[in-house]
Amino acid sequence: MTQPLTLHPDRLLPDTPSRRAIARELLDGIEALPIYSPHGHVPVEWFDADFRFGNAADLLLTPDHYLLRMLASQGHRYEDLGVSGAGSAGIAAPREAFRTLAANYHLYLGTPSRTWLDHALSSVLSVEQRLSAETADAIFDQVTETVATPEFAPRALLGRFGVRVLSTTDSAVDDLSRHHRLAKELAGQCRVIPTFRPDSVTNPEHPDFARDIARLGEQTGQNLSDWASYLEALRQRRAAFIAAGATATDHGFDTPHTLTLPMADCQTLLDAALSGRATKDQAAQFRAQMLTEMARMSADDGLVMQIHAGSWRNYAPDIQSRFGQDMGYDIPRPLNWAAGLKPMLDELGFHPNLRIILYTLDESGYGRELAPLAGAFPTLRLGAPWWFFDSPAGMARQFDQVVETAGFHNLAGFVDDTRALLSIPARHDVYRRSVAAFLSQQVGEHQMGMQDAHAVARALAVELVQDSYRLNNTNEG
Amino acid sequence: MTQPLTLHPDRLLPDTPSRRAIARELLDGIEALPIYSPHGHVPVEWFDADFRFGNAADLLLTPDHYLLRMLASQGHRYEDLGVSGAGSAGIAAPREAFRTLAANYHLYLGTPSRTWLDHALSSVLSVEQRLSAETADAIFDQVTETVATPEFAPRALLGRFGVRVLSTTDSAVDDLSRHHRLAKELAGQCRVIPTFRPDSVTNPEHPDFARDIARLGEQTGQNLSDWASYLEALRQRRAAFIAAGATATDHGFDTPHTLTLPMADCQTLLDAALSGRATKDQAAQFRAQMLTEMARMSADDGLVMQIHAGSWRNYAPDIQSRFGQDMGYDIPRPLNWAAGLKPMLDELGFHPNLRIILYTLDESGYGRELAPLAGAFPTLRLGAPWWFFDSPAGMARQFDQVVETAGFHNLAGFVDDTRALLSIPARHDVYRRSVAAFLSQQVGEHQMGMQDAHAVARALAVELVQDSYRLNNTNEG
Amino acid sequence: MTQPLTLHPDRLLPDTPSRRAIARELLDGIEALPIYSPHGHVPVEWFDADFRFGNAADLLLTPDHYLLRMLASQGHRYEDLGVSGAGSAGIAAPREAFRTLAANYHLYLGTPSRTWLDHALSSVLSVEQRLSAETADAIFDQVTETVATPEFAPRALLGRFGVRVLSTTDSAVDDLSRHHRLAKELAGQCRVIPTFRPDSVTNPEHPDFARDIARLGEQTGQNLSDWASYLEALRQRRAAFIAAGATATDHGFDTPHTLTLPMADCQTLLDAALSGRATKDQAAQFRAQMLTEMARMSADDGLVMQIHAGSWRNYAPDIQSRFGQDMGYDIPRPLNWAAGLKPMLDELGFHPNLRIILYTLDESGYGRELAPLAGAFPTLRLGAPWWFFDSPAGMARQFDQVVETAGFHNLAGFVDDTRALLSIPARHDVYRRSVAAFLSQQVGEHQMGMQDAHAVARALAVELVQDSYRLNNTNEG
Repeated sequence: MTQPLTLHPDRLLPDTPSRRAIARELLDGIEALPIYSPHGHVPVEWFDADFRFGNAADLLLTPDHYLLRMLASQGHRYEDLGVSGAGSAGIAAPREAFRTLAANYHLYLGTPSRTWLDHALSSVLSVEQRLSAETADAIFDQVTETVATPEFAPRALLGRFGVRVLSTTDSAVDDLSRHHRLAKELAGQCRVIPTFRPDSVTNPEHPDFARDIARLGEQTGQNLSDWASYLEALRQRRAAFIAAGATATDHGFDTPHTLTLPMADCQTLLDAALSGRATKDQAAQFRAQMLTEMARMSADDGLVMQIHAGSWRNYAPDIQSRFGQDMGYDIPRPLNWAAGLKPMLDELGFHPNLRIILYTLDESGYGRELAPLAGAFPTLRLGAPWWFFDSPAGMARQFDQVVETAGFHNLAGFVDDTRALLSIPARHDVYRRSVAAFLSQQVGEHQMGMQDAHAVARALAVELVQDSYRLNNTNEG
Repeated sequence: MTQPLTLHPDRLLPDTPSRRAIARELLDGIEALPIYSPHGHVPVEWFDADFRFGNAADLLLTPDHYLLRMLASQGHRYEDLGVSGAGSAGIAAPREAFRTLAANYHLYLGTPSRTWLDHALSSVLSVEQRLSAETADAIFDQVTETVATPEFAPRALLGRFGVRVLSTTDSAVDDLSRHHRLAKELAGQCRVIPTFRPDSVTNPEHPDFARDIARLGEQTGQNLSDWASYLEALRQRRAAFIAAGATATDHGFDTPHTLTLPMADCQTLLDAALSGRATKDQAAQFRAQMLTEMARMSADDGLVMQIHAGSWRNYAPDIQSRFGQDMGYDIPRPLNWAAGLKPMLDELGFHPNLRIILYTLDESGYGRELAPLAGAFPTLRLGAPWWFFDSPAGMARQFDQVVETAGFHNLAGFVDDTRALLSIPARHDVYRRSVAAFLSQQVGEHQMGMQDAHAVARALAVELVQDSYRLNNTNEG
Repeated sequence: MTQPLTLHPDRLLPDTPSRRAIARELLDGIEALPIYSPHGHVPVEWFDADFRFGNAADLLLTPDHYLLRMLASQGHRYEDLGVSGAGSAGIAAPREAFRTLAANYHLYLGTPSRTWLDHALSSVLSVEQRLSAETADAIFDQVTETVATPEFAPRALLGRFGVRVLSTTDSAVDDLSRHHRLAKELAGQCRVIPTFRPDSVTNPEHPDFARDIARLGEQTGQNLSDWASYLEALRQRRAAFIAAGATATDHGFDTPHTLTLPMADCQTLLDAALSGRATKDQAAQFRAQMLTEMARMSADDGLVMQIHAGSWRNYAPDIQSRFGQDMGYDIPRPLNWAAGLKPMLDELGFHPNLRIILYTLDESGYGRELAPLAGAFPTLRLGAPWWFFDSPAGMARQFDQVVETAGFHNLAGFVDDTRALLSIPARHDVYRRSVAAFLSQQVGEHQMGMQDAHAVARALAVELVQDSYRLNNTNEG
């Protein structure tokens, strides 16, 4: 028996009458505000005028590592989900893979994956039946047809979703011509801007380090074997990103360690890195020094610096060697933010032009390190709950543990951080509902009046992300 | 003034009308389901036909380290609680010890100990007055009389409690004849099965290591000074446990570290262990290698592997030297599950026949390591909140931090993990009420419908533990 | 438009009708109980008969590092807040600084700072308008006038607030004559007693170490270059503190590590410390040994020992060098309480005369270490949520994670830990409301009856702090 798929208007709001009424009123004030999405992973080429999504599985399942790993955790091979790897055999056809997802949809109960997918199916794709073994084929067909139409091209969806700014995440050596073209084609409508993510040229252990260092040299004409010239090359690329609309950089390392080494030591580390024979310790020092260098450059050029720390990338060597990166087997690790950032903060913690947004995979640091740091240093803000914690409960935990120390205005609002374009409205919706839910407690328990709560809700939904990412520092704001 | 002892039918359920109604309905669907208890510490000899409990103190107080340590924390000597140790003098008589418990019963307010004891007194022992200084003697007498009757023999209680499977925890060299006898005597009624817990022959620092290694050699005829033969001896004992009905092993180490050393290094470690001169580091390596060896054997023979990690056993040397082990002074320690398990998971993380259930004493790893691991590796499930966290709040925290990432189906359901036979129904009752309470929020906030919630409730109450521990892999399921 | 400032009578209580009714009834039983404040930082000279507060900024803003750091986190210079440091220029006048606070008062939404300040403004200072840019001047004037009157001298406020005991925190070499005088002048009304905090003579890295060691030698006539005499000098000062009314010591170190070194090693450490050339490791060993020595002396003389651990003092060197200590840039660090305390507990963990109260800045240890330790060792109690966690949510987290294991009676009640005298009633009020809120859940979910809940509420509000700090061990109790 199929069941109707509907989104309850009060989903994720507290269920007692008084709290719900407060939350509902607060949500009414922010639910329809435009979306600012200055961190995410949608590929820029999706916004080409003629780009269309493929079938339902290619759209909804195979690019989503949340969905894949959950099925894997219950014994499904990636090949059965339509994912091909080295030495793979028997790759399931898209329809078959989609059937597996549908038949196992109960696995996602209680997870944000289900919330996001239900939201996308219902409100974006107009699916009216719940996903299940019985409805799999019909939904596969309906979605596949729908997304072939021009109205569902990513470019069109930006307008439909009310997205005003969307940042892609780009390597330091990526070509930015698409961003320049989009700036013209979408002018006045939506800004699709790049983010400078130089990990592949700042982390000697990155798989693309040698290749991208070579490209960086070519692009900039700098002699990258010289430390000062290497930094100059990065400065040039940052300027190119700024010219293409970028307002931020991004840095994804295992730890947030920073160093302020003397130049001679830096040159030694660079020599080791370029030789391909850097030790693990040298590679770690290189990354730590480069976090500081990036902060110095941000203090100069004003690009907001994002640090995403704590991921043990590619924890499962078998998955990585066969299927590549970002396949659901990155595992968080314990972090010490205060110790890690200290060398950099000693130098730059009060710099008036520097802004750093911290994203963590170790929630035990929320109250112990991150709220005290963000609640004291003018350069630091705390980013939205990231990855595994991008959930209603994760948001509630962040508010609970951070606001008491850092208040609301040292938060950086919300970013959806996703490659799944169709889930962008769902993710912002979950955050806005979580904001309303949290504030309804503050109001219900008389810690805050409704007027203040409305203002805080707007700040969290839109204003803080605009301000934190300096999205208004242009004419188009 | 004595007070009546009653168990409110809606205890532990949310107190708002809508949430309570939902929780109540969900609880109605699972409250009376049979009990599956595949991990615990009830001694197998208690199930001899003629076994009777002693007096109320020997039954309820002295074997319960939760109760003992709380009284100790307020300055009561173990001797005053009827516990005798080396050099003890003035051991209180059972009635006297019971009076001390009763007079201090307020210490347990807010703790699961009180919930369990009230439940056992009321629903199992038909006590009608609350425990207090005034009622101590009368309750002591009533309980002592009651448990002398055949209807309150442990064997009879299994039926009364609706226990379908109960696992004891047994050393690798324990005699299994009782389990074989019980398999016949209780056939069709309840399975009392052993669990293979080889710590005393896999941990060189275990107090019984030398003795039990000698026994293991005798039992199996293997030359235990040879690494391959040592492993073969363990394989033989595992087979003997399987023949006696076992479906699982258990491993209780301070950390979950694993290693995959070459055979020559293993032989060196074994030599050191057998010589009694293993260094601390060698002992740790031995344990780490043995976790991997046990996982390899489980992949072969199908025994589910339980890892209980994080206990600093016998933290208080004075208590240990005078009163022995398990007296309430084991203290949790920080864990790094991801780093610890990696060597083993690199080899076996996707093995189709391997299942490992993880139990932790460090809740900070729930969201940071355990949910991401269990939500990705098909071999891993996360066990119920353990020990200090076996409480309504502990269960709520686990659901809150784990389900968003791992869903419900990577949990292993509930085990009561107790030696206190009378508390078994109480412990499962607390878990089922916590399940109903958590799901009532998901339903009340429109994240899940009632039909799904009923299914999840049944899964958590019964199905997941059956499946996780492979309890249905026999004819008697 | 100005808004009225009112304190809702049910603030911080749960907002559902049944829970609020229960909480309200519980709060009624404890709201007006006297205040016992055996740990705090009010300077003793404030209680001189003729002491008057200065203007509103000097009273409310500049001494409060919570308020200062939040403004700093949003880019305000300390100088703009009226705080002068080395090389400062353009120090704002008090009225100007107060205007900055008022104009940024929204930053404190959701933080206890706002709760405390609103409470002080409304219930102590009779301010009737909410603080804002518009009301800043009028409130500045009103407060400045009010606190110039004798009725608002600190000595008078003690009576008005119902404070029965207030402890100051004093260095080992501080003069205690004021405490002796106050004992006479306030006899039968309020005890203002000192606390022995010897960090400046037990931590070789303390900025005042050399100076205070010299003073200690002068005060006691002991030859401090000899280990035994150094300890004897400390014993003498402890006796002097006891004579001045002290019931407790306090120790604030980065970690809770303890050692039990042989005397010769202690002498070596002392030699290094006095030479000013102790290594970092020697300084850490010195502190660890001194925690044990202080515990030994407490076992002898009965002073309750407080350990405040986990603060990375003066994390921002620029702030420290310019503005000094305690300016809002202390950052918590991860702690291992179980490992740290073990050497001392091995020796003294069961000593009948020793009491130690633990305060932590790492909440991840609540359930993992602190509740298991406090729930087993008769010498240990867990202190109230400290510093960043002195908030309604912080209190809820402590109750949630600790009570299930340690019960209520291994908690030490509440201390306000503040220098902000006007906030003392507010802080106790927040705690009492949090107690009522937590217990209302236990009652509403039928884990506890109202009679027990009333008793627990009184214990938490008053009795446990009296007992834990041995405040009744005198005639005046």
